Amino acid sequence: MNAEKIPDIIIGRLPVYLRALQRMADNGVKTTSSQELGEHVGISAAQIRKDISQFGEFGKQGTGYSIGYLLDKLREILKVDRIWDVALIGAGDMGHALANYQGFQNRGFRIVAIFDNNKEKIGNKIGEFVISDAEKIVEGIKAANIKIAMLTVPAPAAQSVADKLIQAGVRAILNYAPISLNVPNNVKVQYIDPATHLQRMTYYL
Amino acid sequence: MNAEKIPDIIIGRLPVYLRALQRMADNGVKTTSSQELGEHVGISAAQIRKDISQFGEFGKQGTGYSIGYLLDKLREILKVDRIWDVALIGAGDMGHALANYQGFQNRGFRIVAIFDNNKEKIGNKIGEFVISDAEKIVEGIKAANIKIAMLTVPAPAAQSVADKLIQAGVRAILNYAPISLNVPNNVKVQYIDPATHLQRMTYYL
Repeated sequence: MNAEKIPDIIIGRLPVYLRALQRMADNGVKTTSSQELGEHVGISAAQIRKDISQFGEFGKQGTGYSIGYLLDKLREILKVDRIWDVALIGAGDMGHALANYQGFQNRGFRIVAIFDNNKEKIGNKIGEFVISDAEKIVEGIKAANIKIAMLTVPAPAAQSVADKLIQAGVRAILNYAPISLNVPNNVKVQYIDPATHLQRMTYYL
Repeated sequence: MNAEKIPDIIIGRLPVYLRALQRMADNGVKTTSSQELGEHVGISAAQIRKDISQFGEFGKQGTGYSIGYLLDKLREILKVDRIWDVALIGAGDMGHALANYQGFQNRGFRIVAIFDNNKEKIGNKIGEFVISDAEKIVEGIKAANIKIAMLTVPAPAAQSVADKLIQAGVRAILNYAPISLNVPNNVKVQYIDPATHLQRMTYYL
């Protein structure tokens, strides 16, 4: 299996399968079919079988997939069979929402540090986290060996903060600022921009 | 031009082009090339030319794209050359962040109603919006003829709220609950789930 050979579009669907399978497992379901999984995620059974077969033979003709086994394999492939430390940059509304978000639990991530440049916020707590001075981003992230960051700063500040994160060793950025970031090839960026998602749907209305 | 014939993956890239072009326009830039646009959004120039050519001939060989003209055309294609009313369901942390989000301005959307089922929140304000009783979702959305909703309720409530939204005439749902929704074919759903986006990146780490 060569990471470079699997199209990114397939990698992008695996977390969706993982989420749906986890939900089935939480409901006590032990096995599923590509047909049933497809109905949950809105993707064709054929596409699901093709996607999963990229990584080996995980299902059996006639009996379908063992959910527990497929969950283990997907977590291993996506490298979320461990817990990744995540830095959160920006303690505004969105930063608060993410700091309090329950959806990271058991999915491979925990926020371990929050930074903001607002002197009135530095030292305050969000839940259990103390907000650190954004001046200390580089040294703080280096010291903690953090590879993943979520960026919720205003758009004009996003690129310069991203540059600092990369300098500190961050290799994956989840960017909430409505701006495209320039990053080196060895850094991954995903964008969460609600207006972009809405615009993708209005086309069909 | 037939809406059904353009692959959804192309439609999904248009809002990204729109965002980058708007940013160039805001900076006073008048023309661009597929090469330059590609550097901003991390997509190849060839892909951009191919995507845009699906909708007509908007660029000229040698002189590139007029940003103002392309902005107008992309807004028209995505139907964000107007303002869509949006309902927000769930006045928790994420609901607050969205209600206060500045990124919808000039991008085709405005929140016009917020609903929650928490009696302590109903009647309170977020910014200029009064939180309405979730019991009134169907009648409120029908009366206001709202077609788009953002869903920030807890996962166990998401499907039943989505059913109500659809009953009320909503045709596009931006879902923040970490659960796949079952919806009819004539309803579009987009998902914003930070853990899913993070898992898409850990694969490469």
